[in-house]
Amino acid sequence: MTIPVSIEQARAWYSPDDPVHGFDHVLRVYYMAEDLARKEDADIEMVRAAVLLHDVQVEAGERQAHHEAAAAFAARVLQAQGWPQERIAAVQHCIRAHRFRQPSESPQTIEAKVVFDADKLDAIGAVGAARAIAYSLAAGGPIFAPPSERFMQTGETEAGEPYSAYHEYLFKLRKIQDRIFTPSAAAIAAERSRLMAAFFDNLAREMSLPAAETQTGAENAG
Amino acid sequence: MTIPVSIEQARAWYSPDDPVHGFDHVLRVYYMAEDLARKEDADIEMVRAAVLLHDVQVEAGERQAHHEAAAAFAARVLQAQGWPQERIAAVQHCIRAHRFRQPSESPQTIEAKVVFDADKLDAIGAVGAARAIAYSLAAGGPIFAPPSERFMQTGETEAGEPYSAYHEYLFKLRKIQDRIFTPSAAAIAAERSRLMAAFFDNLAREMSLPAAETQTGAENAG
Repeated sequence: MTIPVSIEQARAWYSPDDPVHGFDHVLRVYYMAEDLARKEDADIEMVRAAVLLHDVQVEAGERQAHHEAAAAFAARVLQAQGWPQERIAAVQHCIRAHRFRQPSESPQTIEAKVVFDADKLDAIGAVGAARAIAYSLAAGGPIFAPPSERFMQTGETEAGEPYSAYHEYLFKLRKIQDRIFTPSAAAIAAERSRLMAAFFDNLAREMSLPAAETQTGAENAG
Repeated sequence: MTIPVSIEQARAWYSPDDPVHGFDHVLRVYYMAEDLARKEDADIEMVRAAVLLHDVQVEAGERQAHHEAAAAFAARVLQAQGWPQERIAAVQHCIRAHRFRQPSESPQTIEAKVVFDADKLDAIGAVGAARAIAYSLAAGGPIFAPPSERFMQTGETEAGEPYSAYHEYLFKLRKIQDRIFTPSAAAIAAERSRLMAAFFDNLAREMSLPAAETQTGAENAG
């Protein structure tokens, strides 16, 4: 008999209070993915399992490999719950393909596209902006720092240039809507991206200091 | 001879990397207050001194008394720099009157109104939203939690209800624009409040989970 992966089962796999990749993130992606799966005629059971397993065993410092660790963990869980091998492989594909940067594979199935899109929708909009701020602060970075010309051209910071939440917006978050796969998610992404752009544009305007102050901080003596 | 308070002098009095009340906040308020002081015909030298001294010696856990500690510190600094007693008292009034909750006195002079307004403008808009998120996370609170009926009615949380950045928006930030004193700041406050309301409205919609999940988290097993 095949046993579905349940929310209660998954709760134990995640931090209850990590504001970026904790269980609240998994739950938001879960309900979004359910909604997208219905609209896109995807296999809901497979999508649910993939979402609940997609960020499992992420540990600080090993973000690059977290999708592989999660895919291996998923196989053990699903085998124990009687899932057939080809459905396990399909869930593993969803997990491996959900990464935005350097994915090991890109989403090939409608289920993988739904999981990818639901996860990305949680990285944009107001929730995406808030998570980017939380991520930057947790990493010791600032909310805002003025991006250098070099960063604007290449995406690489200069020596001594802090990587702020605003940098993350410029380099990653504002491009996410162009990477969405399903029409149902694209409509949501467009709306979320508009609000997020207004937020970060205002943030940059409100947090910018006169040029002299951001250079050396030593000239202007009031 | 009277020596003005300088930015470089003030830099040593604040944390360089506190995202909520660090020196970046002081600098943003400084330049905003200069701008308001020009528009409102306030004494710029007094406004500058008050802003640079307004959050001095804030330590975690003694927020309630921080304006009194800052006013006493200000008197020592200004005496040493040759300021006359009545101008020192006027600066101290600006510092004591800048608190939003439970102020020991309300702003009576145009300089105190300008300092109050400039400080409050940094608590709304995109920068205010970002600072509220930073403050909540630093205090171990979440970005968002659904507010209870009780909180909506009374501003007090129920037992077990987390106080999130969204709570701070509902209870404090959205009311700030009604407390602004000067016309120059009111125009900026109106614009910042609109963006902030859109941000938090979207945040609440995007981060809300189905009711069953926010109650006990135990019903919905996928």
